[in-house]
Amino acid sequence: MAHRLGDIACQVGARLEGDADCIINSIAVLQDASPGSISFLSNRKYRKFLKTTRASAIILGQEFLDDCSANALVSDNPYLVFAKVARLMTALPAVEAGQHSSAIVAPSAQIDASARVGPGVVIEDNAVIGARVDIGAGCVIGAGCRIGDESRLVANVTLCHEVTIGRRVLIHPGAVIGSDGFGLANDEGVWVKVPQLGTVCIGDDVEIGANTTIDRGAIKDTVIGDGVKLDNQIQIAHNVEIGAHTAIAACVGIAGSTRIGSHCTLAGGVGVVGHLDIADHVHFSAQTLVTRSFTEAGHFSGNLPAVPTHAWRKSIARIRQLEETAQRIKTLEKQCRKRPSKDPGQDI
Amino acid sequence: MAHRLGDIACQVGARLEGDADCIINSIAVLQDASPGSISFLSNRKYRKFLKTTRASAIILGQEFLDDCSANALVSDNPYLVFAKVARLMTALPAVEAGQHSSAIVAPSAQIDASARVGPGVVIEDNAVIGARVDIGAGCVIGAGCRIGDESRLVANVTLCHEVTIGRRVLIHPGAVIGSDGFGLANDEGVWVKVPQLGTVCIGDDVEIGANTTIDRGAIKDTVIGDGVKLDNQIQIAHNVEIGAHTAIAACVGIAGSTRIGSHCTLAGGVGVVGHLDIADHVHFSAQTLVTRSFTEAGHFSGNLPAVPTHAWRKSIARIRQLEETAQRIKTLEKQCRKRPSKDPGQDI
Amino acid sequence: MAHRLGDIACQVGARLEGDADCIINSIAVLQDASPGSISFLSNRKYRKFLKTTRASAIILGQEFLDDCSANALVSDNPYLVFAKVARLMTALPAVEAGQHSSAIVAPSAQIDASARVGPGVVIEDNAVIGARVDIGAGCVIGAGCRIGDESRLVANVTLCHEVTIGRRVLIHPGAVIGSDGFGLANDEGVWVKVPQLGTVCIGDDVEIGANTTIDRGAIKDTVIGDGVKLDNQIQIAHNVEIGAHTAIAACVGIAGSTRIGSHCTLAGGVGVVGHLDIADHVHFSAQTLVTRSFTEAGHFSGNLPAVPTHAWRKSIARIRQLEETAQRIKTLEKQCRKRPSKDPGQDI
Repeated sequence: MAHRLGDIACQVGARLEGDADCIINSIAVLQDASPGSISFLSNRKYRKFLKTTRASAIILGQEFLDDCSANALVSDNPYLVFAKVARLMTALPAVEAGQHSSAIVAPSAQIDASARVGPGVVIEDNAVIGARVDIGAGCVIGAGCRIGDESRLVANVTLCHEVTIGRRVLIHPGAVIGSDGFGLANDEGVWVKVPQLGTVCIGDDVEIGANTTIDRGAIKDTVIGDGVKLDNQIQIAHNVEIGAHTAIAACVGIAGSTRIGSHCTLAGGVGVVGHLDIADHVHFSAQTLVTRSFTEAGHFSGNLPAVPTHAWRKSIARIRQLEETAQRIKTLEKQCRKRPSKDPGQDI
Repeated sequence: MAHRLGDIACQVGARLEGDADCIINSIAVLQDASPGSISFLSNRKYRKFLKTTRASAIILGQEFLDDCSANALVSDNPYLVFAKVARLMTALPAVEAGQHSSAIVAPSAQIDASARVGPGVVIEDNAVIGARVDIGAGCVIGAGCRIGDESRLVANVTLCHEVTIGRRVLIHPGAVIGSDGFGLANDEGVWVKVPQLGTVCIGDDVEIGANTTIDRGAIKDTVIGDGVKLDNQIQIAHNVEIGAHTAIAACVGIAGSTRIGSHCTLAGGVGVVGHLDIADHVHFSAQTLVTRSFTEAGHFSGNLPAVPTHAWRKSIARIRQLEETAQRIKTLEKQCRKRPSKDPGQDI
Repeated sequence: MAHRLGDIACQVGARLEGDADCIINSIAVLQDASPGSISFLSNRKYRKFLKTTRASAIILGQEFLDDCSANALVSDNPYLVFAKVARLMTALPAVEAGQHSSAIVAPSAQIDASARVGPGVVIEDNAVIGARVDIGAGCVIGAGCRIGDESRLVANVTLCHEVTIGRRVLIHPGAVIGSDGFGLANDEGVWVKVPQLGTVCIGDDVEIGANTTIDRGAIKDTVIGDGVKLDNQIQIAHNVEIGAHTAIAACVGIAGSTRIGSHCTLAGGVGVVGHLDIADHVHFSAQTLVTRSFTEAGHFSGNLPAVPTHAWRKSIARIRQLEETAQRIKTLEKQCRKRPSKDPGQDI
């Protein structure tokens, strides 16, 4: 996978400072790089390694160029350039078409001849698998599912019946798509299951992390927009809609019928209650609980960063006393106000 | 699946207002309904669609009847009526008995002749599978497990050894039942595994969500009562007991040996620490952390809803200062008290 | 599995008080024990059962010995003694070597003759499986993985390509190791995937819980140290490093490139943001959010225990007013300070 640095710069759209003929044959972090490596500066705290790295080329922003003695690919968005370089240098071989002899494929399923169906895969009735789709070992594709061209299910992914997956979707192991939504009616204390009649529609260019779960809709569908990126262990409840190009970090849970806009980011551990409407370009910080709709773009938070436990215990006690504290302040204000000759307005 | 509206009303126990001979052949949400559809009003915010819906019949409460120009099924509990209608209209075909040729069933396992064993299923030694049980593709049933009549494991479910599942239990993909509890003894800094000798007993009519995990007991069993409903990605630790008809939303974690009562509800993301006792009819709101036993029914919370990040940063700073604030108030009170002629008692 | 009590005491290193010839043939909790059982006192709240238990022997600390009428195994660390007794009495039979006929093993994979490969297992190209390794039903072992001697994958575990697992590692069902890290660069609103070129290295004697996910590194590897114990449904992001003998409870999420020290404990539901450095012997309590590095050992918290919902609503309202409260206190202090004849310093 050796590439000329000048060719790399050209293909990824970065400005080259240095030797265009330098040959790059590996990718490494700054502190481990050796000659022939390309590296990048992703985080200001690693700046110190610029002086000592043995990398042959470094992807960085203009502001770090003076510190860099190696060849440089300069960009306003060095991380994006790195992504492009890494994709260029590690292109996967084309999928080897064909069905493994151990795969169990229903006769009524339509599998494109260019698709790969791995060992132990189960594909049920009337499923439709597109061109160059890659279905890894142990996946279960339920009846009536449709998977768009060039999508990849890595391994042990479960699609329940009738789920639709777009093109170039990447789904990691353990993900479950199309399980029943949590619909329950209460009949004098006993829960009665509400049949979940909708399904799940996943757009194009979506990535779904390991052990993430996306429930099918109750009547209408659960919808994941184009370009949405979901990390691991996310829970998406029935009838949720997520707008295009929203990115959601691990361990987030979104309750039923909530609509998340486009270009949002939800940091790890965020919880969103049901039936809300979140605008485009809304950003929630880690572990925040969202209990109301947010109709304007912005950054929202509600988390409590860790402090030493003994100090935190005092804070909790004081939080418990806030009601009493408010009463004491009111009393003090009354006392001050009652003294005619000491009117605070006069004092100031 | 066409039904006469009068027959539906009869079977689900709702009061019919309108044409008993109207034929219903589909279910839809109000805003998408077409003639022949039955719909329901689940949430006051969708009331506006009553005027424009094309549904032939609507399930609703008495209070909305005046706004409804279609036929109506009236009930105090419209969501329950909807559940019954949906079950009536979407009844699944009976399970097709038999073992798929690719299933791997230990000779010592006892599989009822009316059960279905799907493709790629593994059933280990001495497992006992009841009548009309449906085991979907890729499930693994450990040695000595027992599954009661009419239960369904959708796909890729794992039951570890000796787990007992009741009747009419529904388990969604990726769920793991009977994995080892997290039992560790510390030997001068090194963790020593404590064998987990109990198992898991699941009652009748339980539903278990996708990727939910229920650990086996350390010595005694982990016990899930009849009618309990568990959403996706819930973690139930060893020796937890959950009382009948309790419903738990997604992403909840319950630590070891805690007992949850009957008819409780835990909203999404709740965490419950170990060795607690929670009474019947206790309700915890989303993302609440439960650190002590609650011996009386009631609603409990401890979460912090999201606000704009800049405002929240100020709140955190003020929370950090609460100890200092308390001292300042005490000083102010002392100052006011020390002035004999301004005794607050006299002022009031 | 009958053992002489004197032999047990000897092998587990506890002091015997009572009859060395007593025969022990089962393990039970105090309240369910019968003659022949050994039990233990794990939690002060079960002390009351000491008087009524029918156990033949009890493992306990010196401080409870006076209350105990049965034979006793006395130790400073009764839980550790119990772990050893339970391991002694429930030793598993040796793994039965061999590959199940339904397993799909790439010809280039190297499987030690003493390993067991269960039904429906898939082992891909060039994987190397050590001595006495036990791979349960439905596991998928990606290309180039290496699994050290005596490790056990219970069932339905997924290892993506090139993952390295140490010796005596125990991995529970549904765990996914080596899935892609969540690496995304933003190209004018569209997320571009950053290839994840590293892998995951798991040390010796590690335990990994059900449905836990560990992502592969972006360039370098994600590293889990020797003796680390991970409970269920934990998410470990790319390039995280976890030091030896750290124990992490269920539902914890650790974001990318964070380094956790050795001998730490993270209680259930903790979230740790990315690029942090956590020292050895740091302990975080349940549901705490960690947003900065902690360079010293200690206990840290930031959670809010549940209280009745009506009281909590008032607390939230007061927290929202903290900014205003601070202003009111400042005003009061100014008023008090402005009265020359009432100098608080003189009053005291």
